[in-house]
Amino acid sequence: MSTEHHDAAPGYSDDKVAVLKRLKRIEGQVRGLTRMVEDDTYCIDVLTQVSATTKALEAVALKLLDEHLAHCVVNAARAGGEEADLKVKEASDAIARLVRS
Amino acid sequence: MSTEHHDAAPGYSDDKVAVLKRLKRIEGQVRGLTRMVEDDTYCIDVLTQVSATTKALEAVALKLLDEHLAHCVVNAARAGGEEADLKVKEASDAIARLVRS
Amino acid sequence: MSTEHHDAAPGYSDDKVAVLKRLKRIEGQVRGLTRMVEDDTYCIDVLTQVSATTKALEAVALKLLDEHLAHCVVNAARAGGEEADLKVKEASDAIARLVRS
Amino acid sequence: MSTEHHDAAPGYSDDKVAVLKRLKRIEGQVRGLTRMVEDDTYCIDVLTQVSATTKALEAVALKLLDEHLAHCVVNAARAGGEEADLKVKEASDAIARLVRS
Repeated sequence: MSTEHHDAAPGYSDDKVAVLKRLKRIEGQVRGLTRMVEDDTYCIDVLTQVSATTKALEAVALKLLDEHLAHCVVNAARAGGEEADLKVKEASDAIARLVRS
Repeated sequence: MSTEHHDAAPGYSDDKVAVLKRLKRIEGQVRGLTRMVEDDTYCIDVLTQVSATTKALEAVALKLLDEHLAHCVVNAARAGGEEADLKVKEASDAIARLVRS
Repeated sequence: MSTEHHDAAPGYSDDKVAVLKRLKRIEGQVRGLTRMVEDDTYCIDVLTQVSATTKALEAVALKLLDEHLAHCVVNAARAGGEEADLKVKEASDAIARLVRS
Repeated sequence: MSTEHHDAAPGYSDDKVAVLKRLKRIEGQVRGLTRMVEDDTYCIDVLTQVSATTKALEAVALKLLDEHLAHCVVNAARAGGEEADLKVKEASDAIARLVRS
Protein backbone atom coordinates (compact mmCIF):
# COMPACT_ATOMS: atom_id res chain seq x y z
CA MET A 1 0.00 0.00 0.00
CA SER A 2 3.00 2.33 0.58
CA THR A 3 3.76 4.54 -2.38
CA GLU A 4 6.93 5.93 -0.83
CA HIS A 5 10.46 4.65 -0.48
CA HIS A 6 11.81 5.13 2.99
CA ASP A 7 15.21 3.84 3.93
CA ALA A 8 15.11 5.44 7.35
CA ALA A 9 13.08 4.42 10.41
CA PRO A 10 9.56 5.86 10.44
CA GLY A 11 8.88 9.04 12.44
CA TYR A 12 7.31 7.21 15.38
CA SER A 13 10.32 4.96 16.01
CA ASP A 14 11.23 6.71 19.29
CA ASP A 15 7.72 6.28 20.62
CA LYS A 16 7.14 2.84 19.16
CA VAL A 17 6.72 1.24 22.58
CA ALA A 18 4.18 3.89 23.63
CA VAL A 19 2.20 3.54 20.37
CA LEU A 20 2.16 -0.27 20.66
CA LYS A 21 0.92 -0.01 24.25
CA ARG A 22 -1.95 2.24 23.18
CA LEU A 23 -2.89 -0.13 20.34
CA LYS A 24 -2.91 -3.08 22.79
CA ARG A 25 -5.30 -1.14 25.01
CA ILE A 26 -7.54 -0.32 22.01
CA GLU A 27 -7.58 -4.01 21.02
CA GLY A 28 -8.78 -4.73 24.57
CA GLN A 29 -11.48 -2.04 24.25
CA VAL A 30 -12.76 -3.64 21.01
CA ARG A 31 -12.81 -7.07 22.70
CA GLY A 32 -14.73 -5.43 25.54
CA LEU A 33 -17.29 -4.18 23.00
CA THR A 34 -17.72 -7.74 21.69
CA ARG A 35 -18.38 -8.98 25.22
CA MET A 36 -20.89 -6.17 25.85
CA VAL A 37 -22.87 -7.08 22.71
CA GLU A 38 -22.70 -10.82 23.53
CA ASP A 39 -24.09 -10.02 27.00
CA ASP A 40 -26.95 -7.90 25.53
CA THR A 41 -25.66 -4.74 27.24
CA TYR A 42 -27.95 -1.74 26.89
CA CYS A 43 -27.36 0.04 23.51
CA ILE A 44 -26.48 3.44 25.02
CA ASP A 45 -23.79 1.89 27.22
CA VAL A 46 -22.30 0.10 24.20
CA LEU A 47 -22.34 3.41 22.29
CA THR A 48 -20.49 5.18 25.12
CA GLN A 49 -17.71 2.59 24.85
CA VAL A 50 -17.62 2.89 21.02
CA SER A 51 -17.11 6.67 21.40
CA ALA A 52 -14.29 6.09 23.91
CA THR A 53 -12.59 3.61 21.55
CA THR A 54 -12.92 6.02 18.58
CA LYS A 55 -11.34 8.78 20.68
CA ALA A 56 -8.45 6.47 21.64
CA LEU A 57 -7.83 5.63 17.96
CA GLU A 58 -7.89 9.33 17.05
CA ALA A 59 -5.32 10.02 19.76
CA VAL A 60 -3.02 7.38 18.19
CA ALA A 61 -3.51 9.01 14.78
CA LEU A 62 -2.66 12.48 16.15
CA LYS A 63 0.44 11.04 17.87
CA LEU A 64 1.63 9.37 14.63
CA LEU A 65 0.96 12.52 12.62
CA ASP A 66 2.80 14.68 15.12
CA GLU A 67 5.88 12.43 14.92
CA HIS A 68 5.59 12.33 11.12
CA LEU A 69 5.60 16.14 10.84
CA ALA A 70 8.44 16.48 13.36
CA HIS A 71 10.67 13.94 11.59
CA CYS A 72 9.78 12.99 8.00
CA VAL A 73 8.35 16.35 6.90
CA VAL A 74 11.01 18.46 8.64
CA ASN A 75 13.81 16.29 7.19
CA ALA A 76 12.32 16.46 3.69
CA ALA A 77 12.00 20.25 4.01
CA ARG A 78 15.69 20.44 4.92
CA ALA A 79 16.70 18.15 2.05
CA GLY A 80 14.61 20.44 -0.21
CA GLY A 81 13.49 19.90 -3.78
CA GLU A 82 10.45 17.95 -4.89
CA GLU A 83 10.64 15.59 -1.94
CA ALA A 84 9.56 18.40 0.39
CA ASP A 85 6.46 19.22 -1.71
CA LEU A 86 5.61 15.54 -1.96
CA LYS A 87 5.83 14.99 1.80
CA VAL A 88 3.67 18.03 2.54
CA LYS A 89 1.05 16.90 -0.01
CA GLU A 90 1.08 13.40 1.49
CA ALA A 91 0.70 14.74 5.05
CA SER A 92 -2.15 17.08 3.98
CA ASP A 93 -4.01 14.17 2.40
CA ALA A 94 -3.61 12.09 5.57
CA ILE A 95 -4.91 15.00 7.68
CA ALA A 96 -7.94 15.36 5.35
CA ARG A 97 -8.72 11.64 5.76
CA LEU A 98 -8.51 12.00 9.54
CA VAL A 99 -10.70 15.10 9.71
CA ARG A 100 -13.32 13.39 7.55
CA SER A 101 -13.22 10.03 9.36
CA MET B 1 -22.23 2.01 33.87
CA SER B 2 -25.83 1.62 32.75
CA THR B 3 -28.17 4.08 34.41
CA GLU B 4 -31.28 2.50 32.92
CA HIS B 5 -33.35 -0.51 33.77
CA HIS B 6 -34.00 -2.67 30.75
CA ASP B 7 -35.84 -5.90 31.11
CA ALA B 8 -36.18 -6.36 27.37
CA ALA B 9 -33.51 -7.32 24.83
CA PRO B 10 -31.48 -4.34 23.58
CA GLY B 11 -32.43 -2.72 20.25
CA TYR B 12 -29.66 -4.45 18.29
CA SER B 13 -30.71 -7.97 19.27
CA ASP B 14 -31.93 -8.85 15.76
CA ASP B 15 -28.63 -7.80 14.23
CA LYS B 16 -26.44 -9.11 17.02
CA VAL B 17 -24.66 -11.55 14.72
CA ALA B 18 -23.92 -8.82 12.16
CA VAL B 19 -22.66 -6.40 14.85
CA LEU B 20 -20.43 -9.10 16.38
CA LYS B 21 -18.98 -9.90 12.94
CA ARG B 22 -18.11 -6.24 12.37
CA LEU B 23 -16.48 -6.00 15.81
CA LYS B 24 -14.39 -9.12 15.07
CA ARG B 25 -13.20 -7.49 11.84
CA ILE B 26 -12.34 -4.26 13.70
CA GLU B 27 -10.37 -6.27 16.28
CA GLY B 28 -8.43 -7.74 13.34
CA GLN B 29 -7.81 -4.24 11.94
CA VAL B 30 -6.39 -3.08 15.30
CA ARG B 31 -4.13 -6.17 15.45
CA GLY B 32 -3.06 -5.30 11.87
CA LEU B 33 -2.12 -1.81 13.10
CA THR B 34 0.04 -3.35 15.84
CA ARG B 35 1.85 -5.48 13.24
CA MET B 36 2.38 -2.45 10.98
CA VAL B 37 3.98 -0.47 13.81
CA GLU B 38 6.11 -3.48 14.90
CA ASP B 39 7.34 -3.78 11.28
CA ASP B 40 8.20 -0.05 11.09
CA THR B 41 5.64 0.57 8.34
CA TYR B 42 5.73 4.06 6.86
CA CYS B 43 3.72 6.51 9.06
CA ILE B 44 1.32 7.61 6.32
CA ASP B 45 0.35 4.00 5.55
CA VAL B 46 -0.31 3.36 9.25
CA LEU B 47 -2.45 6.53 9.36
CA THR B 48 -4.51 5.36 6.37
CA GLN B 49 -5.32 2.16 8.26
CA VAL B 50 -6.16 4.08 11.45
CA SER B 51 -8.67 6.19 9.44
CA ALA B 52 -10.22 3.02 7.97
CA THR B 53 -10.55 1.49 11.46
CA THR B 54 -12.12 4.68 12.86
CA LYS B 55 -14.64 4.69 10.00
CA ALA B 56 -15.51 1.03 10.69
CA LEU B 57 -16.12 1.83 14.38
CA GLU B 58 -18.31 4.79 13.43
CA ALA B 59 -20.35 2.54 11.16
CA VAL B 60 -20.97 0.17 14.12
CA ALA B 61 -22.03 3.15 16.24
CA LEU B 62 -24.47 4.37 13.57
CA LYS B 63 -25.89 0.85 13.23
CA LEU B 64 -26.41 0.54 17.01
CA LEU B 65 -27.97 4.00 17.19
CA ASP B 66 -30.29 3.24 14.28
CA GLU B 67 -31.55 0.09 16.01
CA HIS B 68 -31.84 1.96 19.29
CA LEU B 69 -34.05 4.66 17.76
CA ALA B 70 -36.14 2.11 15.86
CA HIS B 71 -36.79 -0.05 18.93
CA CYS B 72 -36.10 1.47 22.35
CA VAL B 73 -37.01 5.09 21.51
CA VAL B 74 -40.08 4.21 19.45
CA ASN B 75 -41.34 1.81 22.16
CA ALA B 76 -40.79 4.42 24.88
CA ALA B 77 -42.64 7.02 22.78
CA ARG B 78 -45.57 4.62 22.48
CA ALA B 79 -45.55 3.85 26.20
CA GLY B 80 -45.53 7.63 26.75
CA GLY B 81 -44.89 9.55 29.93
CA GLU B 82 -41.52 10.52 31.34
CA GLU B 83 -39.85 7.43 29.91
CA ALA B 84 -40.18 8.87 26.38
CA ASP B 85 -38.49 12.14 27.34
CA LEU B 86 -35.77 10.25 29.15
CA LYS B 87 -35.02 7.99 26.18
CA VAL B 88 -34.87 10.94 23.77
CA LYS B 89 -32.52 12.83 26.12
CA GLU B 90 -30.31 9.75 26.44
CA ALA B 91 -30.21 9.21 22.65
CA SER B 92 -29.41 12.90 22.04
CA ASP B 93 -26.52 12.73 24.49
CA ALA B 94 -25.15 9.60 22.77
CA ILE B 95 -25.41 11.34 19.37
CA ALA B 96 -23.54 14.38 20.75
CA ARG B 97 -20.73 12.12 22.03
CA LEU B 98 -20.50 10.46 18.60
CA VAL B 99 -20.46 13.73 16.65
CA ARG B 100 -17.73 15.08 18.94
CA SER B 101 -15.60 11.91 18.94
CA MET C 1 -35.40 19.58 -1.13
CA SER C 2 -37.86 18.29 1.48
CA THR C 3 -39.15 14.83 0.68
CA GLU C 4 -41.69 14.90 3.49
CA HIS C 5 -45.09 16.46 3.91
CA HIS C 6 -45.42 18.22 7.23
CA ASP C 7 -48.47 20.17 8.08
CA ALA C 8 -47.37 20.86 11.61
CA ALA C 9 -44.70 23.28 12.85
CA PRO C 10 -41.18 21.84 12.77
CA GLY C 11 -39.70 20.38 15.97
CA TYR C 12 -37.59 23.43 16.75
CA SER C 13 -40.50 25.89 16.75
CA ASP C 14 -40.35 26.47 20.53
CA ASP C 15 -36.67 27.28 20.35
CA LYS C 16 -36.79 29.17 17.08
CA VAL C 17 -35.62 32.42 18.67
CA ALA C 18 -32.66 30.67 20.34
CA VAL C 19 -31.66 28.87 17.11
CA LEU C 20 -31.89 32.11 15.09
CA LYS C 21 -29.72 33.88 17.68
CA ARG C 22 -27.05 31.18 17.39
CA LEU C 23 -27.13 31.38 13.58
CA LYS C 24 -26.70 35.19 13.74
CA ARG C 25 -23.65 34.69 15.95
CA ILE C 26 -22.23 32.09 13.52
CA GLU C 27 -22.77 34.49 10.60
CA GLY C 28 -20.73 37.04 12.57
CA GLN C 29 -18.00 34.44 13.19
CA VAL C 30 -17.77 33.74 9.42
CA ARG C 31 -17.57 37.47 8.70
CA GLY C 32 -14.82 37.65 11.33
CA LEU C 33 -12.94 34.92 9.43
CA THR C 34 -13.19 37.00 6.22
CA ARG C 35 -11.72 40.01 8.05
CA MET C 36 -8.90 37.88 9.50
CA VAL C 37 -7.92 36.61 6.04
CA GLU C 38 -8.18 40.12 4.52
CA ASP C 39 -5.86 41.37 7.29
CA ASP C 40 -3.31 38.56 6.65
CA THR C 41 -3.83 37.13 10.13
CA TYR C 42 -1.46 34.30 11.03
CA CYS C 43 -2.77 30.94 9.61
CA ILE C 44 -2.92 29.16 12.97
CA ASP C 45 -5.05 31.92 14.49
CA VAL C 46 -7.45 31.73 11.52
CA LEU C 47 -7.61 27.94 11.97
CA THR C 48 -8.49 28.33 15.67
CA GLN C 49 -11.46 30.50 14.68
CA VAL C 50 -12.53 28.04 11.96
CA SER C 51 -12.58 25.25 14.58
CA ALA C 52 -14.68 27.42 16.92
CA THR C 53 -17.15 28.19 14.11
CA THR C 54 -17.42 24.51 13.15
CA LYS C 55 -18.13 23.61 16.79
CA ALA C 56 -20.86 26.31 16.95
CA LEU C 57 -22.50 24.89 13.80
CA GLU C 58 -22.35 21.37 15.24
CA ALA C 59 -24.04 22.63 18.41
CA VAL C 60 -26.91 24.04 16.28
CA ALA C 61 -27.20 20.70 14.47
CA LEU C 62 -27.35 18.77 17.77
CA LYS C 63 -30.00 21.20 19.08
CA LEU C 64 -32.15 20.77 15.95
CA LEU C 65 -31.75 16.99 16.06
CA ASP C 66 -32.67 16.88 19.73
CA GLU C 67 -35.88 18.84 19.07
CA HIS C 68 -36.61 16.68 16.03
CA LEU C 69 -36.35 13.45 18.04
CA ALA C 70 -38.39 14.89 20.92
CA HIS C 71 -41.23 16.10 18.68
CA CYS C 72 -41.41 14.70 15.13
CA VAL C 73 -40.02 11.23 15.87
CA VAL C 74 -41.94 10.76 19.13
CA ASN C 75 -45.20 11.93 17.50
CA ALA C 76 -44.69 9.61 14.52
CA ALA C 77 -43.96 6.71 16.89
CA ARG C 78 -47.24 7.42 18.69
CA ALA C 79 -49.17 7.65 15.41
CA GLY C 80 -47.57 4.32 14.49
CA GLY C 81 -47.50 2.58 11.14
CA GLU C 82 -45.03 3.20 8.33
CA GLU C 83 -44.64 6.86 9.26
CA ALA C 84 -42.73 5.86 12.40
CA ASP C 85 -40.25 3.70 10.45
CA LEU C 86 -39.82 6.45 7.88
CA LYS C 87 -39.08 9.12 10.49
CA VAL C 88 -36.55 6.90 12.26
CA LYS C 89 -34.81 6.10 8.95
CA GLU C 90 -34.73 9.80 8.06
CA ALA C 91 -33.32 10.76 11.48
CA SER C 92 -30.68 8.00 11.27
CA ASP C 93 -29.55 9.26 7.86
CA ALA C 94 -29.29 12.82 9.18
CA ILE C 95 -27.22 11.58 12.15
CA ALA C 96 -24.90 9.68 9.78
CA ARG C 97 -24.35 12.85 7.72
CA LEU C 98 -23.53 14.78 10.89
CA VAL C 99 -21.11 12.17 12.24
CA ARG C 100 -19.31 12.06 8.89
CA SER C 101 -19.20 15.84 8.36
CA MET D 1 -4.67 35.43 20.30
CA SER D 2 -1.56 34.95 18.16
CA THR D 3 1.40 33.78 20.19
CA GLU D 4 3.81 33.97 17.25
CA HIS D 5 5.73 36.75 15.61
CA HIS D 6 5.46 36.64 11.86
CA ASP D 7 6.96 39.33 9.71
CA ALA D 8 6.22 37.52 6.48
CA ALA D 9 2.89 37.09 4.68
CA PRO D 10 0.83 34.15 5.99
CA GLY D 11 1.00 30.82 4.14
CA TYR D 12 -2.32 31.33 2.37
CA SER D 13 -1.36 34.66 0.76
CA ASP D 14 -1.21 33.19 -2.78
CA ASP D 15 -4.68 31.73 -2.43
CA LYS D 16 -6.17 34.61 -0.48
CA VAL D 17 -8.72 35.40 -3.19
CA ALA D 18 -9.87 31.76 -3.37
CA VAL D 19 -10.16 31.50 0.44
CA LEU D 20 -12.13 34.76 0.64
CA LYS D 21 -14.49 33.52 -2.08
CA ARG D 22 -15.16 30.33 -0.14
CA LEU D 23 -15.80 32.28 3.06
CA LYS D 24 -18.28 34.55 1.22
CA ARG D 25 -20.13 31.44 0.01
CA ILE D 26 -20.18 30.00 3.56
CA GLU D 27 -21.56 33.31 4.89
CA GLY D 28 -24.34 32.95 2.30
CA GLN D 29 -24.98 29.36 3.43
CA VAL D 30 -25.37 30.51 7.05
CA ARG D 31 -27.76 33.28 5.97
CA GLY D 32 -29.67 30.60 4.03
CA LEU D 33 -29.94 28.58 7.25
CA THR D 34 -31.42 31.61 9.03
CA ARG D 35 -34.03 31.98 6.28
CA MET D 36 -34.87 28.26 6.45
CA VAL D 37 -35.49 28.46 10.21
CA GLU D 38 -37.50 31.70 9.84
CA ASP D 39 -39.66 29.94 7.21
CA ASP D 40 -40.23 26.89 9.47
CA THR D 41 -38.44 24.58 7.04
CA TYR D 42 -38.61 20.89 7.97
CA CYS D 43 -35.88 20.02 10.56
CA ILE D 44 -34.21 17.33 8.44
CA ASP D 45 -33.80 19.71 5.50
CA VAL D 46 -32.23 22.32 7.80
CA LEU D 47 -29.89 19.62 9.16
CA THR D 48 -28.81 18.66 5.63
CA GLN D 49 -27.79 22.27 4.99
CA VAL D 50 -25.98 22.49 8.35
CA SER D 51 -23.93 19.41 7.36
CA ALA D 52 -23.09 20.98 3.97
CA THR D 53 -21.99 24.21 5.68
CA THR D 54 -19.83 22.31 8.18
CA LYS D 55 -18.17 20.42 5.33
CA ALA D 56 -17.47 23.70 3.49
CA LEU D 57 -15.84 25.15 6.63
CA GLU D 58 -13.74 22.01 7.05
CA ALA D 59 -12.57 22.34 3.44
CA VAL D 60 -11.40 25.91 4.17
CA ALA D 61 -9.56 24.65 7.26
CA LEU D 62 -7.81 21.89 5.28
CA LYS D 63 -6.83 24.42 2.57
CA LEU D 64 -5.36 26.82 5.17
CA LEU D 65 -3.52 23.98 6.90
CA ASP D 66 -2.13 22.71 3.62
CA GLU D 67 -0.75 26.15 2.76
CA HIS D 68 0.57 26.53 6.29
CA LEU D 69 2.52 23.26 6.11
CA ALA D 70 3.81 24.03 2.60
CA HIS D 71 5.06 27.51 3.53
CA CYS D 72 5.43 28.34 7.23
CA VAL D 73 6.40 24.86 8.46
CA VAL D 74 8.73 24.09 5.53
CA ASN D 75 10.45 27.49 5.89
CA ALA D 76 10.86 27.04 9.63
CA ALA D 77 12.30 23.55 9.06
CA ARG D 78 14.86 25.05 6.67
CA ALA D 79 15.74 27.84 9.08
CA GLY D 80 16.19 25.12 11.69
CA GLY D 81 16.62 25.48 15.42
CA GLU D 82 13.84 25.78 17.98
CA GLU D 83 11.57 27.60 15.52
CA ALA D 84 11.07 24.37 13.54
CA ASP D 85 10.01 22.42 16.66
CA LEU D 86 7.71 25.24 17.67
CA LYS D 87 5.99 25.42 14.28
CA VAL D 88 5.48 21.64 14.19
CA LYS D 89 4.01 21.67 17.71
CA GLU D 90 1.71 24.55 16.76
CA ALA D 91 0.55 22.80 13.56
CA SER D 92 -0.06 19.53 15.46
CA ASP D 93 -2.20 21.34 18.00
CA ALA D 94 -4.25 22.98 15.22
CA ILE D 95 -4.74 19.57 13.56
CA ALA D 96 -5.91 18.08 16.87
CA ARG D 97 -8.46 20.90 17.29
CA LEU D 98 -9.74 20.25 13.74
CA VAL D 99 -10.00 16.48 14.19
CA ARG D 100 -11.90 16.96 17.45
CA SER D 101 -14.21 19.71 16.13
